[in-house]
Amino acid sequence: MADLTGFMAPKTPTGKSAIVPDMPWYYSGTLLTAEYRTDPANVAALLPEGLELADDDPGAVALIWADWQSCSASGAELLDPQRSQYLETFAVVRVKRGETTYTRCVAIWVTKDFAIARGWFQGYPKKLGSMAVTRVMNVGRAAPRLAPGARIGASLAAYDHRLASLVVTLEAESETNGFVNGHPMLHSRWMPSITPGAGNSMDQLITMSTTDAEIGATWRGDFDLELFDSPWDELASILPVHEKIGAYYREVGVTFNGGTLVHDQSNPAV
Amino acid sequence: MADLTGFMAPKTPTGKSAIVPDMPWYYSGTLLTAEYRTDPANVAALLPEGLELADDDPGAVALIWADWQSCSASGAELLDPQRSQYLETFAVVRVKRGETTYTRCVAIWVTKDFAIARGWFQGYPKKLGSMAVTRVMNVGRAAPRLAPGARIGASLAAYDHRLASLVVTLEAESETNGFVNGHPMLHSRWMPSITPGAGNSMDQLITMSTTDAEIGATWRGDFDLELFDSPWDELASILPVHEKIGAYYREVGVTFNGGTLVHDQSNPAV
Amino acid sequence: MADLTGFMAPKTPTGKSAIVPDMPWYYSGTLLTAEYRTDPANVAALLPEGLELADDDPGAVALIWADWQSCSASGAELLDPQRSQYLETFAVVRVKRGETTYTRCVAIWVTKDFAIARGWFQGYPKKLGSMAVTRVMNVGRAAPRLAPGARIGASLAAYDHRLASLVVTLEAESETNGFVNGHPMLHSRWMPSITPGAGNSMDQLITMSTTDAEIGATWRGDFDLELFDSPWDELASILPVHEKIGAYYREVGVTFNGGTLVHDQSNPAV
Amino acid sequence: MADLTGFMAPKTPTGKSAIVPDMPWYYSGTLLTAEYRTDPANVAALLPEGLELADDDPGAVALIWADWQSCSASGAELLDPQRSQYLETFAVVRVKRGETTYTRCVAIWVTKDFAIARGWFQGYPKKLGSMAVTRVMNVGRAAPRLAPGARIGASLAAYDHRLASLVVTLEAESETNGFVNGHPMLHSRWMPSITPGAGNSMDQLITMSTTDAEIGATWRGDFDLELFDSPWDELASILPVHEKIGAYYREVGVTFNGGTLVHDQSNPAV
Repeated sequence: MADLTGFMAPKTPTGKSAIVPDMPWYYSGTLLTAEYRTDPANVAALLPEGLELADDDPGAVALIWADWQSCSASGAELLDPQRSQYLETFAVVRVKRGETTYTRCVAIWVTKDFAIARGWFQGYPKKLGSMAVTRVMNVGRAAPRLAPGARIGASLAAYDHRLASLVVTLEAESETNGFVNGHPMLHSRWMPSITPGAGNSMDQLITMSTTDAEIGATWRGDFDLELFDSPWDELASILPVHEKIGAYYREVGVTFNGGTLVHDQSNPAV
Repeated sequence: MADLTGFMAPKTPTGKSAIVPDMPWYYSGTLLTAEYRTDPANVAALLPEGLELADDDPGAVALIWADWQSCSASGAELLDPQRSQYLETFAVVRVKRGETTYTRCVAIWVTKDFAIARGWFQGYPKKLGSMAVTRVMNVGRAAPRLAPGARIGASLAAYDHRLASLVVTLEAESETNGFVNGHPMLHSRWMPSITPGAGNSMDQLITMSTTDAEIGATWRGDFDLELFDSPWDELASILPVHEKIGAYYREVGVTFNGGTLVHDQSNPAV
Repeated sequence: MADLTGFMAPKTPTGKSAIVPDMPWYYSGTLLTAEYRTDPANVAALLPEGLELADDDPGAVALIWADWQSCSASGAELLDPQRSQYLETFAVVRVKRGETTYTRCVAIWVTKDFAIARGWFQGYPKKLGSMAVTRVMNVGRAAPRLAPGARIGASLAAYDHRLASLVVTLEAESETNGFVNGHPMLHSRWMPSITPGAGNSMDQLITMSTTDAEIGATWRGDFDLELFDSPWDELASILPVHEKIGAYYREVGVTFNGGTLVHDQSNPAV
Repeated sequence: MADLTGFMAPKTPTGKSAIVPDMPWYYSGTLLTAEYRTDPANVAALLPEGLELADDDPGAVALIWADWQSCSASGAELLDPQRSQYLETFAVVRVKRGETTYTRCVAIWVTKDFAIARGWFQGYPKKLGSMAVTRVMNVGRAAPRLAPGARIGASLAAYDHRLASLVVTLEAESETNGFVNGHPMLHSRWMPSITPGAGNSMDQLITMSTTDAEIGATWRGDFDLELFDSPWDELASILPVHEKIGAYYREVGVTFNGGTLVHDQSNPAV
C-alpha cells in the first residue's frame, strides 16, 4: 500500500495536494481592529460550559479585519500568490478558565480554503466570506498615508449579504493594538459522530499562540461600525455595539507552529 | 453559561450561524460522469493502510461533476439560493476492506463553504474550486436537449489553474450511471493533534450511503477528457486516463442522514 | 499592417480574443419576473428627453432574473461553459416615443464580461453583480417542481451589498410572461468624448428585438420582493413597489441579430 | 422629463448609480512589469491601419500587473473598498503615427466592472480576469522586503484558464520603470452599428496621459514569465517572449482627467 502524506486532506504520495502544508506557517499582514463593549450577557451567551466571563471588562469585543499573506517554510506559496493571499474578519472576546484569561474567537469569515482548513485545525469557527480593507500606500490620492486623519474602510459579506461596514480614522501612533486579542487563544475543536445523535467523535479544548511576532507600524484611532445579520450569519444580534473603546491599525508578522491540548471530552467509540 | 447549538461551528444560542444545518440534508441535481481506467498502481498509491484494490477492474476511476441544490428539512436554503446551490467535481475509485467493496473519494473540489464542512464531516477530502457544467434545457439553441448527439461540457479549476476539461457526447438512454460510484462510501476522517508531530486526535474510517434516491433521466455516451496538475493540485499525475470506459448524465435526488463508524484509531490524549 | 478581426475589443488576427463573438447570438434559459406598479413619477424620473410615459399603466415595472446560456453560431462556448453561462437581473419599464410604445431597461446587473460587452452594444446599462435563482428540477427534495405552490427564490448583490431578494410562489400555467418586457426595446447608446466636458462622441437611440423565440413552460404566481439601495446602486429608491401585479416563470430560447438606429445625436468632432 | 446624470450608464436623477463617477479619477498602487522582445512581426500583426512599428526596438513588449486603489474627487470609494480596489494585467507595445511615438495597449484584463467601463472610455480593450500579485510588506516571513533578492509572483487567469505566471527577482533600485509604457497612449475607441454589417457608429483614435505622477520606490530585476493561450484569450501566441529585457516594481500615484481626439472615422448615420 501507499506511503501517503499531507498535513490535512487529501493525502497523496507527494503530499502536494494537501489543503494546507506542514507547519510552521508564516503570516505577514495588517490588522484593522475595532474594540467595543457589548452587554456582558451577550458574551456569556456564546461561551460553552466550563468557560466564564473575564474578570475585567467582560463585555469587551474586538472585531478584526486581517489582510494576510501566508506561506510554509519553503515560501513557494508566495510565488503563486493566489495560494498565499487571503483576508479574514473575526470577532474575539476574552474568557476565563480556572484562573487563566484567554482570548476566544466566536465568529470568523475567510476568503480561501486553506485558511478554512487551518482554522478548523486551530478551532477557529471559520466560514467563507467576502472582505475588503483599504490599503495604506506611500503615494497618490487614492490611498491614505499612515498619518493622523487617515481613514481606512473595511467590509464583510457572506452569501451576498453585507454583515459589517467599518471606517477607522487614525489619530496617533500607539504602543498597543488593543487588549481583547492579546491573550493565548482558547478554542474548541470538535467533530460530530458520523452516527446521527451519537455525540462528538472529537471534542477538545486547545490553546495556542503565535510566536516570533514582528511588529510594524501601529496606530490608534476612532471608528464607525455598522453590523448586520443575515438568515445565515449573526453579528448584529449576538455582538451589538454598546460603547466604543477604540480602533487600531497594525502591521504584523507571526509564526504558527501548533499549540497544546487543554481538555479532552472526545468519544472515539462513536 | 449558554445553551449553544449548531451542527458544526460556529455555535450560537439560535444555531442559525452554523456552517451546516442539522441532518438530514437533501440534494437535487445532475451528475456528469466520465469513467475510465488508470493503471491500478495509481489507485493503489492513493490507498491508506488497510484498504486494498477492488477485485474487479481495480484501475477504474469515475470523475464526476455534480451540479447541486441542497437544503435542510425546513427548505429555507432554497429561498435564498446562494445558500443552496453549489457544484463539485470529485474522483472516486473502488476499494476493498475485508470482503467488502466500497467506493472511496480520493479528490474533490466544491464551490461553497457549507459543502466543504459537510464533506469534512463525511470524510470527503474537500477543497475549493471553480466549476461549470453545461445545462440541458428544453428550448433554444444555446443548450443541448437530452437526445443522441447532445454535447455537455464541464470544467474544473483551482487557484486559477485549469485542472480538467470534459466534453461528453450523449448516445442513448441508460439503465445505469456507471459502476465506480455505486458502492457505500469508505472514507477517512482525521484531525492532527494541535501538538506538532503528536499524531491524530481523531482518526476514523467511516462508511455511509445516501438514501431515498429518486432517479430522473439517465443517459450514456462517449467523452473527451483533459486532466492537468498545478503546483497545488494533482489530477493528471495521480489518475491519468489509460482507457476510456464511458460517460453518463443523470438527474438525481438523494437524502443524507449519517453513516456508521467502521474503525477508530483516534488518540484522544493528544 | 494587420488584418485585425473581432466584433468588439480586443481585435487580433484570429479574432478569437474578442470579448464577444460575431452575431447572431443564441440564448437559452429561464426568466423569473416580478411585475409591480411604482409611482409613475418614479418612471418618468428615469426617462431621457424625448421619451414619455406609456399611456396604459405607466408605473408598471418588471424586475427580471434571467439564468442564461448563450453562444455564437459555432456553439463552441457551450463546450467550455464558463464562457457560456451567466445570470442577469434587470429592471424594465415601458416608454413612448411618438406613437410607439417600447420597453426600456433602466438598470441591469450581469455576472460575466461578455454579457457586459453585449449589453453596451445593445444599450443595456450593464454593471456586474452577483445573482442566484433557485432551479426547478425533476427529482429530489432540494428543488421545486413546476407545479402549484412551488417556491423559487432569487437574489441580487453588487459590491457586497444585497440589492434585491425575491420569492415567487407559482400558482398555475400561464399564457403570458407579463406585459412590461413585451415591446421592442428602446435603448440609449452613448460614449462621452475623451475631452472632459465636450459632450458625447456617440449618442444614439436604437431599437431591437430578439427573434426566433422558442417558448417553454410558462407559469404565473405571487411574489414577495425586498429592494435595497447601496452607496453605488439604486433600486429601492428609484423603483419602490407600490402595488404588486404578478410573477412569472418562463423557459425561453431566443436569437439576437442586431437592431435599428432610431435617432442619432452623436458628435463625431469630439 | 428627468434631469438625468451619470458619467456613464446607468443615468439616474442622483447620478450615484453610474458605473464610473465623474473625472478626475485618482489611482494609487504598484506596477509589476516584465519587459521583453517579441518578433516585431508579432507587434505589427496587432496594429490597425495607420499605425506603424516604433523606430527603435519595435518588438519591445511590457506585460504589467497593476494592483490599484482608485477613487473620484470625493474619495468616497476608499471607505467602501470593494468599490475602490482592483487589479489589472495589460500588455503594451510602442507604435508610431506620423512622427510621434505612442504606447498602445493590445490586451488587458481587470477584476472590476468600473475598471472595464473606464477602460472602454479610454480605449483599453478590457475584459475580466482574475489576478494576484505578491505584496511587499515591512514585517514577517510571508512577504518580501524591497531589497535585492526579493521575489514577487503574479498570475493571470480568465474563464478559469491560466494565461500568465510571472516571478520577478529584484536586484537594485532603479531610476526608470522601463520604457515601453512611457509614451502617451494611442488607443482606438469604437462601437459597431446596431445594424449588422453596417460598420462602426463610433470609430476614434484618441490619445491621453495620466498626470500628477507621484513616484514611490522603484526597483529593477530579472524575471521568469510563462504565457499561455485559452480558447478565448491569446497571449502566448500573439506576444511570445523572444528575449528578456528586464523587470520593474514601482509604487505610483496618478490622476486621469481625459485626453484628446486624434482622428475620427465615426459614421453617425449607422
